[in-house]
Amino acid sequence: MNLIDGKEVANRTNEQTRLKVARLKEQGIIPGLAVVLVGDDPASIAYTRTKDRISTSLGLFSRKINLKKETSQSELLKIVSGLNADQAIHGILVQSPLPPHIDEEKIVVTIDPVKDVDGVHPMNVGKLAIGDPTALVPCTPLGCQRLLLESDVEPSGAHVVVIGRSMRVGKPLSLLLLRKGKGGDATVTVAHSRSRNLAGICRTADILVAAIGKPEFVRREFVKEGAIVIDVGVNRVEDQGSEKGYRITGDVAFAETAAKARAITPVPGGVGPMTVAMLMVNTVIACENQTGVAA
Amino acid sequence: MNLIDGKEVANRTNEQTRLKVARLKEQGIIPGLAVVLVGDDPASIAYTRTKDRISTSLGLFSRKINLKKETSQSELLKIVSGLNADQAIHGILVQSPLPPHIDEEKIVVTIDPVKDVDGVHPMNVGKLAIGDPTALVPCTPLGCQRLLLESDVEPSGAHVVVIGRSMRVGKPLSLLLLRKGKGGDATVTVAHSRSRNLAGICRTADILVAAIGKPEFVRREFVKEGAIVIDVGVNRVEDQGSEKGYRITGDVAFAETAAKARAITPVPGGVGPMTVAMLMVNTVIACENQTGVAA
Repeated sequence: MNLIDGKEVANRTNEQTRLKVARLKEQGIIPGLAVVLVGDDPASIAYTRTKDRISTSLGLFSRKINLKKETSQSELLKIVSGLNADQAIHGILVQSPLPPHIDEEKIVVTIDPVKDVDGVHPMNVGKLAIGDPTALVPCTPLGCQRLLLESDVEPSGAHVVVIGRSMRVGKPLSLLLLRKGKGGDATVTVAHSRSRNLAGICRTADILVAAIGKPEFVRREFVKEGAIVIDVGVNRVEDQGSEKGYRITGDVAFAETAAKARAITPVPGGVGPMTVAMLMVNTVIACENQTGVAA
Repeated sequence: MNLIDGKEVANRTNEQTRLKVARLKEQGIIPGLAVVLVGDDPASIAYTRTKDRISTSLGLFSRKINLKKETSQSELLKIVSGLNADQAIHGILVQSPLPPHIDEEKIVVTIDPVKDVDGVHPMNVGKLAIGDPTALVPCTPLGCQRLLLESDVEPSGAHVVVIGRSMRVGKPLSLLLLRKGKGGDATVTVAHSRSRNLAGICRTADILVAAIGKPEFVRREFVKEGAIVIDVGVNRVEDQGSEKGYRITGDVAFAETAAKARAITPVPGGVGPMTVAMLMVNTVIACENQTGVAA
């Protein structure tokens, strides 16, 4: 079994981004990323802090906007519109989940598609489906794809089973791996909580991606001998023994699946760092597209 | 084995559309459909003629625009823009395939998404992926879904394998059957010409949809005993014995698969009539959305 080291691949990806940012700076351009957080969800606070720290460390201009959880939908829409018009900002990410009084789809369609570095605007999702190379693709699927390629796993012709049909992972990942050409051409199955015979379907996978949001849901009977396992899950489970009172676990029962898998990503240190790294990549792409200047 | 009678379901669907059109007329509104044909491909001529005939027979306003195959891209774009602005037209369909000198995606993104009754504009594809109920969905996937439901086949929880990853069938059908709720909640696999072990993957399907464009490609070893088989293919194959010198065949070798299937669609008389019927349904929906008047 090989461990797929997401941190290592993310570091390499970040180094490439750092060079690109430096080249853009020489041409008088600083890619700018705005991350908007509404409320005080501890996981979201941690995520936005990481995004701010990494983007700053790579030389991007980072603007972190923290809003009270009582922020109204119209206030949030006004802030997004302001960022759309702001020439210093090339990428906008509104951290999910939003408080229940805000209609997330309304916010998403308000983001200018060319600044939608989270790849969630319907225009970008549609372009991804069509195979249009100008699509901005959600960061987690991009990260999963790059992890496979950097581990010399070629999706072409292989059977990928994705558990979970969310708009940030399952659906865009399936569209990404179905595209023609390098990193695509896979046979893709999207399974989910309603799927009958879920373990049996997963056992047909050459590459199994778990993105269902349930701690250690994928057991050894889900995994074919020699399969590649990508664990997208980030779950907090209670752990009295730990200092914080919880620990982070993936959607995959690691030890028992690792024994069968040819390669597997750990949690933490697998997909997580790649998601952040691909956000930086997307911000540079968005900046290049908007300014017409190549890094 | 049951034959799924697409003609019969299409007739019933068309009767519902006829009633809706009549109710809109009482309110002073006539749904209008424009079908644009470029060139003289015999199959395309036949398709556009059928669409014109059926829409007229159901009481819609039909405008058929036949253009020479030399029509330039800018001329075609001008015609589409004119239809976008024309208040008598609620639905626009540009018949595919277009001549090679025309960039189909440029044409597609020019169609106003609210008039895109073919469901191919990225905005509609994206909304379909998100599960937004205002998406206009491509006609063939809608037709396949309705055939299943009218045959009392509930996709929920079932494993659907679609062979083919086109923008008019494979990808939108997978997104449609993945949506939450009635007619959705399926486990969906998209396979294609690059898939390894294609027959084996197809044999895991409870519902097998063939949309690969190869005559009689799906043989008995592709089909699980008791599966539902939906044949989207329309292929002309040479046939010296027939009057026209060709006959129409599906993507499925009918006789040998029918012996194993629980139910199967014939070609012709299966998905084909449903595609046309759903175009009429989409035109009425688009008209209702644009006028704000419900049928």
